[in-house]
Amino acid sequence: MRKILLLVCVLCCVVSLRAMDHEGIVDETLADGRFPLIVAGRPTPVLADETDFPGVPRAIRTLLKDFGRVCGTDAVWETSPAGGPVIIVGTYGTPLIDRLVRKGKLDKKSLQGKREKYVMTVVDAPMDGVPEALVIAGSDRRGTMYGIYELSEQIGVSPWYFWADVPPVQHRDLSMARGTYTAGEPAVRYRGLFLNDEAPCLTTWVKNHYGTDFGGHAFYADVFELILRLRGNFLWPAMWGWAFYADDPENSAVADEMGIVMGTSHHEPMARNHQEWTRNRQAYGGVWDYTQNKTELQRFFREGMERARNTEDLITIGMRGDGDEALQGSTADNIRMMESLFADQRRIIREVTGRPAEQRPQVWALYKEVQSYYEEGLRVPDDVTILLSDDNWGDIRWLPGAAERQRAGGWGMYYHVDYVGAPRNSKWLNVTPIQHMWDQLRLTYDYGVDRLWVLNVGDLKPMEYPIDLFMDMAWNPQAFTAENLLDHTLRFCRQQFGEAAAPEAARILNLSCKYSGRVTAEMLDRNTYDLESGEWRRVADDYVRLEAEALRQYLTLPESVRDAYRQLVLFPVQALANVYDMYYAQAMNHKLYAAGLPEADLWADRVERDFARDKELSEEYNKVMSGGKWDGMMIQKHIGYTSWNDNFPADVLPRVSRLGDAAGTGGYVFEARGGTGTMEAEHYFAATDASGARWTVIPYMGRTLSGVSLQPYTAPTDGASLTYRFSLPEDVEQLKAVVAVNATLAFARREGHRYAIRLDDGEEQIVNFNERLNEQPANLYSVYYPTVARRVTDNTVTFAGKVAAGLHTLTIRPLEPGTVFEKIVLDCGGYRKTYLYGEESPVTRQPAQ
Amino acid sequence: MRKILLLVCVLCCVVSLRAMDHEGIVDETLADGRFPLIVAGRPTPVLADETDFPGVPRAIRTLLKDFGRVCGTDAVWETSPAGGPVIIVGTYGTPLIDRLVRKGKLDKKSLQGKREKYVMTVVDAPMDGVPEALVIAGSDRRGTMYGIYELSEQIGVSPWYFWADVPPVQHRDLSMARGTYTAGEPAVRYRGLFLNDEAPCLTTWVKNHYGTDFGGHAFYADVFELILRLRGNFLWPAMWGWAFYADDPENSAVADEMGIVMGTSHHEPMARNHQEWTRNRQAYGGVWDYTQNKTELQRFFREGMERARNTEDLITIGMRGDGDEALQGSTADNIRMMESLFADQRRIIREVTGRPAEQRPQVWALYKEVQSYYEEGLRVPDDVTILLSDDNWGDIRWLPGAAERQRAGGWGMYYHVDYVGAPRNSKWLNVTPIQHMWDQLRLTYDYGVDRLWVLNVGDLKPMEYPIDLFMDMAWNPQAFTAENLLDHTLRFCRQQFGEAAAPEAARILNLSCKYSGRVTAEMLDRNTYDLESGEWRRVADDYVRLEAEALRQYLTLPESVRDAYRQLVLFPVQALANVYDMYYAQAMNHKLYAAGLPEADLWADRVERDFARDKELSEEYNKVMSGGKWDGMMIQKHIGYTSWNDNFPADVLPRVSRLGDAAGTGGYVFEARGGTGTMEAEHYFAATDASGARWTVIPYMGRTLSGVSLQPYTAPTDGASLTYRFSLPEDVEQLKAVVAVNATLAFARREGHRYAIRLDDGEEQIVNFNERLNEQPANLYSVYYPTVARRVTDNTVTFAGKVAAGLHTLTIRPLEPGTVFEKIVLDCGGYRKTYLYGEESPVTRQPAQ
Repeated sequence: MRKILLLVCVLCCVVSLRAMDHEGIVDETLADGRFPLIVAGRPTPVLADETDFPGVPRAIRTLLKDFGRVCGTDAVWETSPAGGPVIIVGTYGTPLIDRLVRKGKLDKKSLQGKREKYVMTVVDAPMDGVPEALVIAGSDRRGTMYGIYELSEQIGVSPWYFWADVPPVQHRDLSMARGTYTAGEPAVRYRGLFLNDEAPCLTTWVKNHYGTDFGGHAFYADVFELILRLRGNFLWPAMWGWAFYADDPENSAVADEMGIVMGTSHHEPMARNHQEWTRNRQAYGGVWDYTQNKTELQRFFREGMERARNTEDLITIGMRGDGDEALQGSTADNIRMMESLFADQRRIIREVTGRPAEQRPQVWALYKEVQSYYEEGLRVPDDVTILLSDDNWGDIRWLPGAAERQRAGGWGMYYHVDYVGAPRNSKWLNVTPIQHMWDQLRLTYDYGVDRLWVLNVGDLKPMEYPIDLFMDMAWNPQAFTAENLLDHTLRFCRQQFGEAAAPEAARILNLSCKYSGRVTAEMLDRNTYDLESGEWRRVADDYVRLEAEALRQYLTLPESVRDAYRQLVLFPVQALANVYDMYYAQAMNHKLYAAGLPEADLWADRVERDFARDKELSEEYNKVMSGGKWDGMMIQKHIGYTSWNDNFPADVLPRVSRLGDAAGTGGYVFEARGGTGTMEAEHYFAATDASGARWTVIPYMGRTLSGVSLQPYTAPTDGASLTYRFSLPEDVEQLKAVVAVNATLAFARREGHRYAIRLDDGEEQIVNFNERLNEQPANLYSVYYPTVARRVTDNTVTFAGKVAAGLHTLTIRPLEPGTVFEKIVLDCGGYRKTYLYGEESPVTRQPAQ
Repeated sequence: MRKILLLVCVLCCVVSLRAMDHEGIVDETLADGRFPLIVAGRPTPVLADETDFPGVPRAIRTLLKDFGRVCGTDAVWETSPAGGPVIIVGTYGTPLIDRLVRKGKLDKKSLQGKREKYVMTVVDAPMDGVPEALVIAGSDRRGTMYGIYELSEQIGVSPWYFWADVPPVQHRDLSMARGTYTAGEPAVRYRGLFLNDEAPCLTTWVKNHYGTDFGGHAFYADVFELILRLRGNFLWPAMWGWAFYADDPENSAVADEMGIVMGTSHHEPMARNHQEWTRNRQAYGGVWDYTQNKTELQRFFREGMERARNTEDLITIGMRGDGDEALQGSTADNIRMMESLFADQRRIIREVTGRPAEQRPQVWALYKEVQSYYEEGLRVPDDVTILLSDDNWGDIRWLPGAAERQRAGGWGMYYHVDYVGAPRNSKWLNVTPIQHMWDQLRLTYDYGVDRLWVLNVGDLKPMEYPIDLFMDMAWNPQAFTAENLLDHTLRFCRQQFGEAAAPEAARILNLSCKYSGRVTAEMLDRNTYDLESGEWRRVADDYVRLEAEALRQYLTLPESVRDAYRQLVLFPVQALANVYDMYYAQAMNHKLYAAGLPEADLWADRVERDFARDKELSEEYNKVMSGGKWDGMMIQKHIGYTSWNDNFPADVLPRVSRLGDAAGTGGYVFEARGGTGTMEAEHYFAATDASGARWTVIPYMGRTLSGVSLQPYTAPTDGASLTYRFSLPEDVEQLKAVVAVNATLAFARREGHRYAIRLDDGEEQIVNFNERLNEQPANLYSVYYPTVARRVTDNTVTFAGKVAAGLHTLTIRPLEPGTVFEKIVLDCGGYRKTYLYGEESPVTRQPAQ
C-alpha cells in the first residue's frame, strides 16, 4: 500500500504546482503511521548541516521560525539525534544527504543532476538514534530551499505571510502522510521579479518600514525570501533612484548567500545599476554614448563585472539610451555600434572571469526599439539568452520560429504588470486579467521561451496575485489550461483565507482582475463608457455589486484574516468601484448640466464625495490596515492624468459644474422616443398654485423620484394646475397618457377623487383615480387590495384625433385635495407597462413661460 | 441675557419634537454658569417625593440607572439636600413642586391645567441647602415622566437603548445650559402602539427572553418604558394568542402604575381580550353573536368593565364577528344590533363605574366593514371617540368633514405598518416609506383626527423607525413638512449612531424604506419588474448599491454601535437586497431556460445561493447579533406566499429549471433588433476544429463574457472555423460586422495576423487585425498604445449588397494562431460603438447542424 502511494505521489508531483502540491498531506490528525510535525504544540526538531550550501542554513532557520508562527514554539535545530523523529534537511552532495543516499534511504536518481528539485520523503531509521525522519533533500541548494518552504506552506505559513499579512493557521498538532513528494524541476530556468518605478510608493514604504533611503539588505532579504517561497530564483532590483550594488554592499552578498540570481534590467548592462552611472557620470566621461565614450564606458562595465565575478548573477549585455530611452541615431548605425559593443562586453567578461564568455550566463533584452535591431538582423552569440518582451500590457510582441528556438542561450520573456509610459502609467493597482496573463504566458512557453521569465511588478504590492500566478506558471506552464486556470485562483485564496472562504474570494478576485483590466483607472474618464445606452450605469453597478460581495465576505472572516483580505481582495475592488462611480457621476453631471437640470448638482456632489472617499480608502490602506504597516505603499496618483506621466502635483478632482440656486423649478421639456415618453411629476413645465394651497414636491415619495401635491390638503384646489411639455418626433395616430398617482383613497369625496387633464387646447377629460379603491365587493380583491398594497394607481387617458409632431402641453388640474402625482407616461403606441413606468425620457429645460 | 434665552426656549419649544427638543443644551463642558449633570463620573443626585403620582418614582429610578449607563455610576435619590446641586423631579400638585411654585421658582401658568407637559428649568436656591437645581416638573404624572425621559435622552440614553441596543454615549462630565425648556402639550391625546399578529416572532422571542408563554409584566414593562420614552401613553396589547388582562394579573397593574392607558383592539369590546372569549367560550354560552347570546355576552362585557374600573383604560365598544371577522348578516340587521349593543355596553359602563357613561372615555372602531355601518348612518353617542383606520397599507380611508369634526368624543386613527391579510401579509420587514406615512398622518391631523392615534406594529421589531416617526408625529404633526421631513430621519440616526454617521445612515434608511415600500417581499416575484427593459436589473442593482453603502458605513462604526446599526439599517437592506437578487435571478433563469441557454443554470445556482443566504441573514439576526438577544424575532416566513396567508410550512425555494449537461455547446441563433445585434463569441452556432487544435472557450477573458481561441497556439489553424447565426427583422441595405478580438500582437507573422470572414455563401474577406499593433512611428501613439492598453481591437467588415430579412450565417476562419475572439456585432445601420460593444442581443438555441 505504501509503495503504491509513493509511486502515485512521485508521478503526479512531476507536474505539480506550488500550493497545489501534495494538497491534504498535512493535517491535524496524529494517527498511527503518519509522521509527526507538531505534537502538543512542540515541533519536531530539525537535523541539518550548518555547512550545507549557502542559503540552506538561513532557510532552515526561517523554517524553525515558521514552526513557531504555527504553534507558538520555534522548532529546534538539533546537532545530533536526541532519540525521536526528526526532520532532516540537506542538499545532494553534502555528507548528511549523501549518507542517506548510500544507505538507500534516498533515491539517487531522483536528485543527481537535477535542477532545483527537492524530494520530501518519510524514512524509517535513517541513522542511529533516529527512529524515523522526514527527509527534505535538494538536488542543489535551491532545490533544498524549495523543499524547506514547501514544508512551511504545508504546515500553514503562506509565502505571503509577511508581504500580505496572511496569518499562519494555528495548530497544536500536525502530521504528514507518509510518502515521497516532489515538485519536479522547473520548466523555466530563471524565474523572478523586477522591482521597478519604485517611487513614490516603494521608496516611501521602505523608508517608513526599514528606515533607509534606498533598498537595503534587510528589505531585499524580505523580497528574496518571498521569491524563494514562490520557488523563484531571480531578481532585477529597483533602479529608478536606487542602486542595488552601490547603495548597500550587503545587498549583493545577501542575494548571493540566499541563492537569488541577480540581474540588471534590460537597459543596465554589465551588472551595473543605472544610478551608478547617473551619480558618477562625470567620473566616466559624462556621455552615455558608446561611439563617443567607449573607453570610459568599458571601465564602467568592467567594474561591474569584477564586482559580480563570484556571484551567479546574470549579466545583461547590450545598451539602450541614457535612462531607458531609445538610442539616438539610425538603426543601421546603432546596429553597427551594438555589434562592437557585444564583442567588447564579452571580452570584458572573459578577461574578468578568466573563462570563455559563453561560460557566464548573459542576456540581451529586445525591449521596445531594440527588438527592431534584431528584426534588422543584429545577432548576439548563440550562448546569450535573448530576452523578448511584451508590449508592457501583457501582449507578447514576437516569438521565435521553430528554427530560431534552437539557439543555445535560448529565449527569455520580460513581462509587465506595472508600467510607466504611454498611453498612461499603470502604477496604482493591478490591471492584469488572470486570463490574459495565462493566455500570453502559455503562448510564451509553447513557443520555446523558457530560459528567463521576469515580471515587472512595480512596487511589488499590490501585485500579489499576478506575482503568485506568474511564478507558478514559470515553474510549470503546461499545467495551466483554460479549463483549470481559475483553480489556481482558488488555491491562492484557500492558502490566504482558508478553505471556507476560498471559492467566494476567488470568484471576486477573478472578477476584480477582469474589471480592472477593461481600462485602467489612469485612462478611465467620463467618456470611456456610454451613458445613453446605460452602459456606464451597468459597469458602475457591476463594480458596486462586487464591492458589496467583497464587503459581505470581509465581515464573515475572522479578524486575523481581514487585513490580508483587504490587501488582496477588498481594497482594489473598493478603490476602483469608487473611481468608476466618480467618473460615472461626472458623466451624469456633465449631461444634466448641459440640459439645465438641477439634478446635475447632486451628481457634482457625488463626484466630490467619491473623490474624497478615494483619499479615505488610501489613507485606510496606509495608516490603519495592518496597524499602519504598509504606510506609503498606497500613495500613487491615479486621478488627473492628461498625458502618460504622473508629474502632476496631486490627484485632481474631475471637473464638475453646478446650476446652484439659479436652477429654479419647472421649465422641463421632454422628448418622446421609441413611441413612449416618461416624465417625473416633479419635472413639470409650469405649476399654478391654488389661492390657499401650493404645489409641493415631496422628495423620495413614490416609486421613483418624488411626488407632487397641492398642500395643505384641507384647502380647495380651485385654480391650481400642472403642465407638462414634450415634443413628439413624428405624428402620433393615437396618443395616450398614463398618469400614476399615489393610491390615495377617497377620504374627502366618497365617489372618488378626480383630476382634469387635457392636451394642448383640447377638451378636458375628468379622471376619477380612486373610485374603485374601496372595500365594495366588486373592488375588494380585484382592485383595492392589489392596488393599495403597491401604493400607486394609474389611469390611462386617450386623446382624440391624430397628434402632430412637435411640442405639446399636457395640463392637469386636481379637483379634490390630496392627490400626489408621481409620473406621467406618454404612450404614442410604443409603451409597454413596467412597474416603475420606465426610465425618464430625455429632457432639457427652458424657462417656464 | 438669561431672561432672553429663557423666553426663546419656551417659545421655540412649544412646537418642538422629541429628540429635536433643546438640541445641544447638554454637552461635556463644565463651564461656569452651566448646570452640572455629571462631574468626574459622578451624577448629580436626584431629589423627589417617593409619594409623587404613580409611575413617577419608577421613572426616576430608571433615570438613576440611565445616569449609570452613561457614566458608570447610577445617580442617587436623595431624600434631603446634602448641600450641592440637585435634580428636583416632581408633579404639579405634589408638595415638593407646589412649594417651588409658591416660592416663584416655577411659573404656575406653565403647568396648571396643562396636559402631559413638562417644564425643565435651572433655578438658584430652590430650597434650603440647595444652591441650584435642575427642576423637572410635570403638569401631571406623564408630563413629569416625559421630562424625566427627556433628560435621559439629553444625557445620551436613546429611547431605543433596550429595543435596538443603542449604546449610551459614555461621559465623565456633562452639563446643561441654563434655561427653561418644555416640549409643550401633545397634539394627539392618546398616542400608542398595537402589538399585533405576535406569532411566531414576538411569541418566540418573549419565550426566549422572558421565559413566558405569554406577554407577562416584565415584557410589558419594557414595552411601556419604550412608549413613555417616546412620549406615548397608550397600548393595545397583543391578542392573537395572548390575553393581556388574563395571562398575568400584574400586567394591568404595571400599566396602571406606569401611566400607560390600555385599550383593547378594534374588535375586542369592553376591556376584554379576545382570547378570554376563545378560551372560555363555553362558559359564556358559546356563541359570539349578540342577537343570540346577549345575556352571556353582557356578563362577559361586565366582567371586563369591572376589572378595568379603577384604571385609565380606554374602553372599546361595539363588536365585530368572532376573531376579527366581519359580522354575518345584512348591514341593516347589523346596524340595528349595534345600536342596542352600544346602549347595553354604555349601561354596563355606567353601572360599573357608578358615573355617567360619558365620563369614561370610550372608543368605537370603524375598521373594515364597520365603517360602512357608519356610512349607512349608524352613530355612537357624541362623547365616544370614533376610531377611523387606514386601509392597512397606510392610506386613510375616510376623514370627517368640518361639521363631523365637532363631536365631543372626537376622532381617532388606527394605522398600520404591519398587516395580516390580503393581498399578502406584511409581517417581515418594515415596508412603509417615510414620505407615505408623513403624507397620510399630516392629512389625518389636518382633518381634525387628534383624539387617539394607534399604530399596528406587529412584533414591534423591526418597526423601530416607523414607530419613532409615528410617535413624534402624534406629539406634534404640524412640525413636519415635506421640506423638513427627512430631518427627523437625520435626528433619529444621530441619536442612534452619533453625529458623524447620521447623514449617511439617514440617507440609507430613507432609501431603504422607499425601496421596501415599492412592493413587499411577500408580493415580490420574478414578474414584478420588467426584464427586457433592464428594469429588473436596475432595481436589483440599486438594492445592492444600497447594501454596499450600508456595509461601508457599518465598517466605519465603532463595534459598540454595530448591533444597533444592523437592526435599524443594515439588516433590512441586506435582507431585501438579497430577496430582490433572488427573484431577479429567477426571472433570468426562466428566460434563459426557455431559450435553451446554458447560462440558465448559473442563474438557478444564484437563486439557490440567495435563498440559502436569506436563511443565513436571519440566523445572524437571531443568533449572532447582540449576542443572540433577539433570538426568534426574525423567523417570519416571507418567501413562497401563494395567497395572503403564511400558513405554508416554511419558506419555499423559488422554482428554477436547469439544462444541465444536456445543454451542449453552439446552436445559438440571435435576433438583431433596432438596427444592431451583439453576439458573444462563445455563443457561436457551430465550431469546426483544426486537425491539431480545438476551439476553446476561455471563461472571463476579455471585456464581457469570455474569449474563444483555437488551442494550442503552436498548431496550424487550417480547416477551423466559427459560424454565427442571426436573423434580421427586415432587409438591410448595408450590413456590417464589427469583430472584437483580444489585442494579440503579430507574434507569429510580422505582417499581421488575419482571419477570413464571410456572410452566408458570399465572398470571403480577409481581415488583418493587428498589422498596425506595433511600434512603427505611424502606429505607436495613434494605434498601438491606445489599443494594447485597452486589450481589445475591433475591425469592421462591410458586406456587399442588400441583405434580406431572415436567417443568416457569418463564418470566421483564423489564418494565424493565437486569435482570441470576443464579440461580434452586427451593424444594420443602428449600431453606435460603445466600450463593451453593447448588451448581447436576444438569442435562442437550436441544435447545431
